[in-house]
Amino acid sequence: MSAVDAIVVSQGTVQRRAIAKAITLLESTRADHRAQADELLTALLPHTGKSLRLGISGVPGVGKSTFIEALGLHLIEQGHRVAVLTIDPSSSVSGGSILGDKTRMEKLSMHEKAYIRPSPSSGTLGGVAEKTREAMLVCEAAGYDIVIVETVGVGQSETAVQGMTDMFVLMQLPNAGDDLQAIKKGVMELADLVVINKADIDADAATRAQAMITSSLRLLGMHGNPNDPHSDKHWQPQVISLSALLGQGVDTFWKAVSEFQTLQTANGLFNQRRQNQSLSWMWERIDAGLKQAFKQNSAVREQLPQLTASVQAGQLAASTAARELLRTWNQR
Amino acid sequence: MSAVDAIVVSQGTVQRRAIAKAITLLESTRADHRAQADELLTALLPHTGKSLRLGISGVPGVGKSTFIEALGLHLIEQGHRVAVLTIDPSSSVSGGSILGDKTRMEKLSMHEKAYIRPSPSSGTLGGVAEKTREAMLVCEAAGYDIVIVETVGVGQSETAVQGMTDMFVLMQLPNAGDDLQAIKKGVMELADLVVINKADIDADAATRAQAMITSSLRLLGMHGNPNDPHSDKHWQPQVISLSALLGQGVDTFWKAVSEFQTLQTANGLFNQRRQNQSLSWMWERIDAGLKQAFKQNSAVREQLPQLTASVQAGQLAASTAARELLRTWNQR
Repeated sequence: MSAVDAIVVSQGTVQRRAIAKAITLLESTRADHRAQADELLTALLPHTGKSLRLGISGVPGVGKSTFIEALGLHLIEQGHRVAVLTIDPSSSVSGGSILGDKTRMEKLSMHEKAYIRPSPSSGTLGGVAEKTREAMLVCEAAGYDIVIVETVGVGQSETAVQGMTDMFVLMQLPNAGDDLQAIKKGVMELADLVVINKADIDADAATRAQAMITSSLRLLGMHGNPNDPHSDKHWQPQVISLSALLGQGVDTFWKAVSEFQTLQTANGLFNQRRQNQSLSWMWERIDAGLKQAFKQNSAVREQLPQLTASVQAGQLAASTAARELLRTWNQR
Repeated sequence: MSAVDAIVVSQGTVQRRAIAKAITLLESTRADHRAQADELLTALLPHTGKSLRLGISGVPGVGKSTFIEALGLHLIEQGHRVAVLTIDPSSSVSGGSILGDKTRMEKLSMHEKAYIRPSPSSGTLGGVAEKTREAMLVCEAAGYDIVIVETVGVGQSETAVQGMTDMFVLMQLPNAGDDLQAIKKGVMELADLVVINKADIDADAATRAQAMITSSLRLLGMHGNPNDPHSDKHWQPQVISLSALLGQGVDTFWKAVSEFQTLQTANGLFNQRRQNQSLSWMWERIDAGLKQAFKQNSAVREQLPQLTASVQAGQLAASTAARELLRTWNQR
């Protein structure tokens, strides 16, 4: 059986092994592997795109894995197949990992209708995000119709996850100041849905947080204008309070997700977002590739240390140094 | 007299004309002008760097020009020479301009110790920012010891201005919600100093805004930890309420700026920030140059439309398209 058929057509253990093998191939840095991976991706592409891609983010301790396990099992019960991928920016920095530990979702990871894959363990955020985007396509080709991409609220990983999913969910703890942090980091405005978890611990605090975040979203202009006759055609970010631990509110959450999908599909924004994401992704990789080639060029590498030192010492204008380096590069 | 001497040594009208001519040269897109401009910049560089570079931002209507006029006249009275440059992102979009109108600062613009230059009127934000950085160096070489770079709170221009100045000041109106907008846009965390203007209209509102923004800054963790024995060595962003119209509070403002400069110089952060800015600037221009060369390459231009269409149609993975285009580019 071809690698493509093993992913698209086969089932059970054979399929799982084929998926894992394909993702390992995608993650390889060897040039011949990369050529094979590109060929495989192109062959898989007609079978992709049919899932709902859900991004979930939140600080460590907010209860992401508990929530994803509860959500995943709920969705499987309804007949879905669920893949969970992770972007863990901490793993490439520390060598360790905040996320990516399969045992965190014990029941879900053992379920035959779920596929859980930890974060690629090395590389820049851009590189890790690229591997995850490609792994998402493999999962889609294998028939997983819900793909969850999880990330921890560190650095720019939220922007990366929002840039590859159809809906971005921000998980918050029910305490004041938390929402201000999210606004500060610009992640609140990425959110299509805000989930306040751990409502079981303090229901009053959760209700207060819900009201505060709703009013923040309104002040930030992320809620539509109620006087705008078209505002019902655009999604208004919702704030939902739930308890992942007790499994309470998961159905409400999924109802909101489904409403979002229906509305965005009807107004054309669902497909538009995906097209924009693909083009941004392409240009992001081109930028990274250009910069890498530039930095590896021997003439540039020879000239760079001295020019950098001159710029730092204030002897050479930064723009002049940039032009000199670009001239060197163009004459190579 | 050489162009360099006309800028560095001459005075009065001769110097003003030399500055204007140099900046016009810097703004030219002609290749031979650019070569001359680079030569001039390199010759001027030993005479630069001795000013305090002050960034000022705020939404239209906050009273920036009234404030800068009051501040500029106050500084000239104290023996300083003041240059005011502008980055107006609106001018390149609309052809018109929110800022950049000399008549806004009537007294200051007529003063012989002040030099006011409107925003370069075309190009990308990156391009406009580059011209302004270079114009700043020309003003420094001409002996202006305070260079103010003003921008209107639109798009990413605040980040550009913060990236080229020693101190970044955010001007706010005394109404609630305004600070939340600033937090949302990530501009609050860029601020070394927040000014609440128009305290003359409603002193109570200004006091409330001052308290709210101070507490927001604290919640955002931008104020130091009072229990940290080293926290007095680092600048804590201040919030100052004033009336630019009545000229009240301008001295308090300048006192805070001077404290900032003294502290940052003592702890070494003043020079470190400038060095980092220069290197970021260099890499920003390199990135822009690489992308421009890539997009202008004939082989890339030939291949790009079809690959873009395939990516949009979902027939080609974005990363595969990026790799194909980079291969084309590398084989040119």
